[in-house]
Parts: sequence; C-alpha cells; structure tokens
Amino acid sequence: MKKSIIITAGGIGKRMESEVPKQFLLLGSKPVLIHTLEQFFDYDPTAQLIITLPKDWINYWKELLTKYDTQIPHTLVDGGNERFHSIQNALTICTGDQIAIHDGVRPLVSMATIDNCFSGLAIAKAVVPVRPLKDSIRMGSLEGSASVDRSQFFLVHTPQCFDAETLKEAYLQGFQPFFTDDASVVEAIGVSPLLVLSNEENIKITSPTDLKILNALL
Amino acid sequence: MKKSIIITAGGIGKRMESEVPKQFLLLGSKPVLIHTLEQFFDYDPTAQLIITLPKDWINYWKELLTKYDTQIPHTLVDGGNERFHSIQNALTICTGDQIAIHDGVRPLVSMATIDNCFSGLAIAKAVVPVRPLKDSIRMGSLEGSASVDRSQFFLVHTPQCFDAETLKEAYLQGFQPFFTDDASVVEAIGVSPLLVLSNEENIKITSPTDLKILNALL
Repeated sequence: MKKSIIITAGGIGKRMESEVPKQFLLLGSKPVLIHTLEQFFDYDPTAQLIITLPKDWINYWKELLTKYDTQIPHTLVDGGNERFHSIQNALTICTGDQIAIHDGVRPLVSMATIDNCFSGLAIAKAVVPVRPLKDSIRMGSLEGSASVDRSQFFLVHTPQCFDAETLKEAYLQGFQPFFTDDASVVEAIGVSPLLVLSNEENIKITSPTDLKILNALL
Repeated sequence: MKKSIIITAGGIGKRMESEVPKQFLLLGSKPVLIHTLEQFFDYDPTAQLIITLPKDWINYWKELLTKYDTQIPHTLVDGGNERFHSIQNALTICTGDQIAIHDGVRPLVSMATIDNCFSGLAIAKAVVPVRPLKDSIRMGSLEGSASVDRSQFFLVHTPQCFDAETLKEAYLQGFQPFFTDDASVVEAIGVSPLLVLSNEENIKITSPTDLKILNALL
C-alpha cells in the first residue's frame, strides 16, 4: 500500500508569545517541524510527504531546510486560512492508497503510534490515535457544570489515518463548524473510526509551557 | 476565615514502575509531597495542614521530613484504601471554616490557583479549578465513539475548595461509584460548584513521563 502523509503547519502562532509560528521554534537542536518531518520519513521513506504551510512562511521554511541541512523530499501546499481548506488542497495531490494527517506541532509522535494508525486501516476506513484522560472532567460552561465519567472519554491525537478514497469523498462536503478534526469529517459520511493507542509524549505544542515539556521529553 | 487544607497522599504507586509511591519521588532537590506541602504553607502559614497517608508509609515520611529538614507543622491521617474514606477521616479533625482538598501529587499548584479557589468561596459553597482541553475529545469505548464539542468540557484539577459545613454534610453520605472527586460528592447534596481557572503546570503525576515534565517545569 502506498502511503501519503499530510503534515499541517498552518498555524501563525498567536498563543506562543512569539513572532515565529510554533512549528518553526527550536526543540532541542532543530525546529519542531523538522522533527515531525523526520519521524514520518524514518517510519516510511517511500511515503509521499506533503506539508501545508501559510504562503508567507514558505521562504522562511526553505531557509530552515538549508540551515539544518534537511534533504527529506516533500511537497508544500498553501495552508490557507482554514485547516479544512488546507486539507482539501493537499488531497488534490495525494497519490497514496492510505493517507495520514498529522499536526506539525506534535513532533514526538512515536513509530509505534504511526504504525498503530496505519495498521488499523487493515480493519477500518479511518483510525484515530487516542489517550485516556488522567484528570477528571466536567461538562458545561463557567455558569454551570456537571461531572461526567472520564472513562468514557478519550483525548484525540494525530496522525489520523484514512483509506484514501473514503477521505477524498468526505472532503467533497462543504465545511461544517462541527468538523473539529479529520475523523469528524469522515464520520459525517457515515464512517466510524477505529480508536488505537497513542504515545503519551505525542503532545501538541500550543503554549511556551508545552515547548518546555517537549524539550524535557526529547 | 480559618482555612483547613487536606493533602491526599494515599497512592501506592503501581503505575510509576517504582517501589516508592509517587508522592515520595524526587522532584528537583526534594520529594514531591514536600513541594506540595510547602506551596500551601507559603500560601497561608496559619492554615491547618492535614496529610492523608497510607499507614505503612508514615515512618518513611517522617524520615523524609528529617532528611530534608522540613519543619512545616501538619497532622497525619490514615489514608486507608479508599480516597473517600481518607477524606472522611480527615474531616473529623478539620477545624477550618473553609476546606481545600488537594492531590499530593500536584506539586506545581500556583499561589494564584490556590487563591482563585479560596476566593471563589465568597460567592459559592464549592469551587473547582479547571483547564480548557487542548486536544479534541471523543466519547465512547474502543468499540465505537463520537466526536464531542471540546469547548463544553474542562479538565478538573485541585485544590477543590468548600465551605466546611457543606463539605462535612456531603461526606455523611455513603460512598457512590460516581463520586469521582470531591465536587461530585457535594453535587450529590445539590450544591453546584463554581469553576475557576487552574494553572497549566498544576499537573498530576501519574507516570514517569509526568515526573520528567514536572522536573522541566520546576
């Protein structure tokens, strides 16, 4: 099976108290997005690699590739303003039978997690890596809330993996506000995703604290 | 208002791949539980401090106090097997008008979080510190699941703070399996907790990865 991997790096970093979007910040000795790219290349060097990137940052990314001497072949796709439309753009050039979509700011995804996700496609059209919750959770608003049974909830990570035909069909739909991730897009055409286990370190960098955490885990 | 603070340290550490329960492991230069105790003592040196501890570990804890030269006055209460019963035990000796209950394995609770919780008691009988979710979440089991709107859910931290009379009344109930935290115990007598913001670093140590993370954040 030929694999395509879409890495989304469309963020512009408002929450990071930083001029540079978080996918370009240094983690250990290299930018976050280079770590992420390397993980997938190491997993399968024959996979088609696609990165969705804001237009304004394409030159910056190319400079980073030169600076860090990264030779991994990949295609850039315009990240646009909305993640949904970035994925639609990327899908037009996907040639794989199986497609993974991964957050560029989850650089510590493990080989085991990637493999769990692709392997799940043997029995499902969509696979989502998840973690159990460590904290209790409540449902509601700041005005009122109720405890809920946390064993019934899972934190959703990426890469979410899909049968290519199914994913392309799902992305023909118009955007809906309840499309919170790619799995919810395929669900809207009646496909139930298989849940598999993600690795604990597969954290999404959304704040300076997260970057500190990932530096410690690296 | 006189404050009582109950720090629960009843865990026996099965998930930590360690002989020593996680509340006693080294974080930076000191055991986790000493950090936690110090945070509350620094917040209010006049508060009554109570630690619930498994009977078998009381001598070990006393040795740690000597070794790390910790003079903070506190009372030990038998942790028992069930957290619910540890709290019942601790409540029998609580003399405060306001009571906080905190996980001993959340050593990086901030002064601001503790203060948010106690301050909330000016307008509510119960206060719960929470964080918004960073990841998407799904509800269901490994057999089937559905995306849910994460903006309606919050991760629940501690210290949960209560009007003493209300909490003592709530803990007269028999144990119920849906008592996942102290707020759910007071909810069962009709009290709605106020949600306030917790600090991002107020992480519960449940795995060796968490301990690495907290060491980085310290």
